[in-house]
Parts: sequence; C-alpha cells; structure tokens
Amino acid sequence: MTIRYDGTNYHGWQVQKNALAVQPVVQDSLCKILKYRPDVTGCSRTDSGVHAQGYCFHFDYTGRMDAQSLVKAMNTVLPDDIAAIDCRQVPDDFHARYAVKSKVYRYRFYNGKTRDPFYRQYAQFIPYRLDEQRMQQAAQAFVGTYDFVGFCASGSAVEDTVRTVMAADVWRQGEIVTFQVEADGFLYNMVRIMAGTLLYVSQGKIDPADMKSILLSKDRKKAGPTAPACGLCLYKVNY
Amino acid sequence: MTIRYDGTNYHGWQVQKNALAVQPVVQDSLCKILKYRPDVTGCSRTDSGVHAQGYCFHFDYTGRMDAQSLVKAMNTVLPDDIAAIDCRQVPDDFHARYAVKSKVYRYRFYNGKTRDPFYRQYAQFIPYRLDEQRMQQAAQAFVGTYDFVGFCASGSAVEDTVRTVMAADVWRQGEIVTFQVEADGFLYNMVRIMAGTLLYVSQGKIDPADMKSILLSKDRKKAGPTAPACGLCLYKVNY
Repeated sequence: MTIRYDGTNYHGWQVQKNALAVQPVVQDSLCKILKYRPDVTGCSRTDSGVHAQGYCFHFDYTGRMDAQSLVKAMNTVLPDDIAAIDCRQVPDDFHARYAVKSKVYRYRFYNGKTRDPFYRQYAQFIPYRLDEQRMQQAAQAFVGTYDFVGFCASGSAVEDTVRTVMAADVWRQGEIVTFQVEADGFLYNMVRIMAGTLLYVSQGKIDPADMKSILLSKDRKKAGPTAPACGLCLYKVNY
Repeated sequence: MTIRYDGTNYHGWQVQKNALAVQPVVQDSLCKILKYRPDVTGCSRTDSGVHAQGYCFHFDYTGRMDAQSLVKAMNTVLPDDIAAIDCRQVPDDFHARYAVKSKVYRYRFYNGKTRDPFYRQYAQFIPYRLDEQRMQQAAQAFVGTYDFVGFCASGSAVEDTVRTVMAADVWRQGEIVTFQVEADGFLYNMVRIMAGTLLYVSQGKIDPADMKSILLSKDRKKAGPTAPACGLCLYKVNY
C-alpha cells in the first residue's frame, strides 16, 4: 500500500514510546477495516516532521477485498493528514524494505523575500537569493557509488555506509528551489546534510569543484549543517 | 501593510468574541513594535477558515521606522501562520477598504483520485473528473455589472447588491483546478456560491448557457451550494 502523509504532527514512521508515529496510526486504521491488527512493514524509517508523497509498506492479507476497495476504505478511517494513494497485491515473498530498488527524496527551500505561511511546514525558508545553478553543479558530485559516511549523522549504528546515488538535481520554480536525489538507500540524515551542504555552496562557503573531495574525505565536519526536517519529503519508492 | 495568512486556525479577519481572529493578532504584534496598540482597518472581512495571499490593512503611524523595517520587525513577532509581505506609506486620507479598486479571489479544487493530505486545508477535494473548460465557459456569465443577490448568503444586511466582475477564469494545473474572480466588491459568500455553482456546471446539473438567466433570476435557490471555506483565498487587492 502506498500512502501520502503530512509529517508535521508525527515523529516519523516508526512506532515510538510516548510519541505519535505514522505506523501505529496506519495499523489502527487497517484494524478497523480488517477486524484484526496486522503487522505492517515500511519501506524505511522517516525522521520526525518529514513528509511523504509516496510511502510504501506491506502487510499480509488473506481476505476478499480487492486492492482499490482497501484504498477507499482506508481513506474513510485514516486521519486527514494521512491518505491511502494506491494498493496492489504482491508476491508472498515481497518485502517493502528489502525489495526497494531506489528511493527518491525531495528537499525544498522557500526562497522568497519574506517567510510564507503556506510553506512554513513544507520548506526551509531562505531569505537571500539561492544560486540554484551553482547548487546543481555541486550536486553532481553525489552521483555514483561512494562511502557517504561524511553525510551521515553521528551516532548511527549502520555498518555499511556505501550507497549508490543514481541522480541528484536542483531546480527552481518561482520561489521554490528543489533538491531531488535518488539512491538505492540513504544513511541517517543523509539528504538533510546534503541539502545543508548545498546551502553552503550557494553561500560561497564551499566551491562546487570541492564537493567530490569533501565526499571522499568521509569527514562529517567538512560537510554543511543538517537542514531542518520540514523541507524533506520521501517522494517516491521504486521497486 | 500587506500580510499573507493561513486562515485555518482563524475565524476570519474581524475581531470576534470568544474566537481567534487575524485582526487582534496583527494589532498585538504591531503593539509590540510600536509600543502602543494602533487601530487597524482591513480591506474586507474574510470568513472563518479562508486564507489570504495578499490582505491589506492601514493604520496610523507617526514614528521613524521605514516601511521595510516595519515588515521585518512584524515578521519577528507575528505567529508563523501570518507573515508581513509588504508595507508602504500612503496619503493621510487613504482607507484600506474604501480605496479598493478591485479584489481578486481564488477558489481551488484538488481534483485527484484520492484525497491529498497536503491540500486538505487549502482546496476542496473533488474525486470525480472536473470539466474545467465547461466551468470556464459558464464563469464568463459572471463578467459584467449585475445584481448578485442570488449569489449572496441569506441573512446578509447589505442593501446594494450590485457588483462589477471584471474577470472570471477557470484553469487546471495538474490536479489543481482554480477559479479566479476579480470584482470591485463581493457579497457575503459570493465566491463560495459561485464555486459551488461551477461544480454543478461540471456535474451537468447546470448548463453553461443557463448561467446568465440564473444570475438574472436573483434567486439564491437556483445557484449551487456554498463551497467550503478552506478552498478560498483572497489573492490580491488592487488600489
């Protein structure tokens, strides 16, 4: 099942103690329809406050409702900041996390002169003019197979920090500057650190030509700051 | 001063008993900067839950801050769902309501297959395919000087119900269908009733060729329903 959610009021996907997460809300909603509470397995964790345009999870179902009826039924019980978008039957051995071929994230900057109330929860506000061409040039350094440990929040327990980035692009539409990155997997805070580093590039603190050596240095301190969660959206999961 | 606000949490512009409105919040914010609480006069009332892309108000100020510094200062004290966009000095006899030449409203429909959490507070969700060309055709009947009493909520105390609509257009951008209307003034719920009537047109309940006679009948019952507030936005005020 594919869902879309406004992550503003959630502490990410994963079940948390003493904090509202998307996963248990989805399980509770499925429970109302299926009359039992299924395990659901998501495609990835998402951070607190991060949004999803197309988040995927799987669950076992042996009942008779077809996939589109499940979508309709879910949309009557889910809260209004989460919506079911699509659903399809998959092979028994399908796994929403392990079967991922790539994930596409988008990080958005609102680049107007004054802050915009309509983007306050969906983009980072940057009041000075962003140089999206310079950012686009720098982002090309991310494309390829590298050890991205320098673009990973410290304290992460992941052992293998090598990932393959298929594409990275920055573009402007009016006052919105979007950074989109597709990879076979992402480390903890990886996109937000990339976004913060591209801000440094726009500010002239980092030269686009130096991005590759920053990446190869594997030194978190050479990259930029972690950009705020609200600008980040898990845009699409490819299987 | 021009402000932008997300009206979701406000009962419109006008001060209300026992309900949060935009006007007193603006006054409180000005008070923090000016050290006195000025009267502020808005360009119009807006309904509960209606948004503003560019709402204008005036107030008297004899201090030394320039207009752009007032904007900056306001944005540090206003809540994050209201932002100051612009400010300029006006002649002493300027009046934010009486000096209005025209106002532009936009009503938005989210016309996707499933509801979208990101538009839940900013558009009316319509799950069946809207016929924006048919709606555009029908909207042309609004253009001109007419008695719009049939497109006014009952119980309104306004005596003169003649208004001049300069332009009315409907267009689609992906899953968003926008109805934009510019007039020298609007009656209570006028845009929302127009939007609801255009929905009837799309559904085939009203023929575009009959719109003019519905308008001329001055009969509220012949027009469509009042569309929900969340889709409405005061887009621009022209002086």
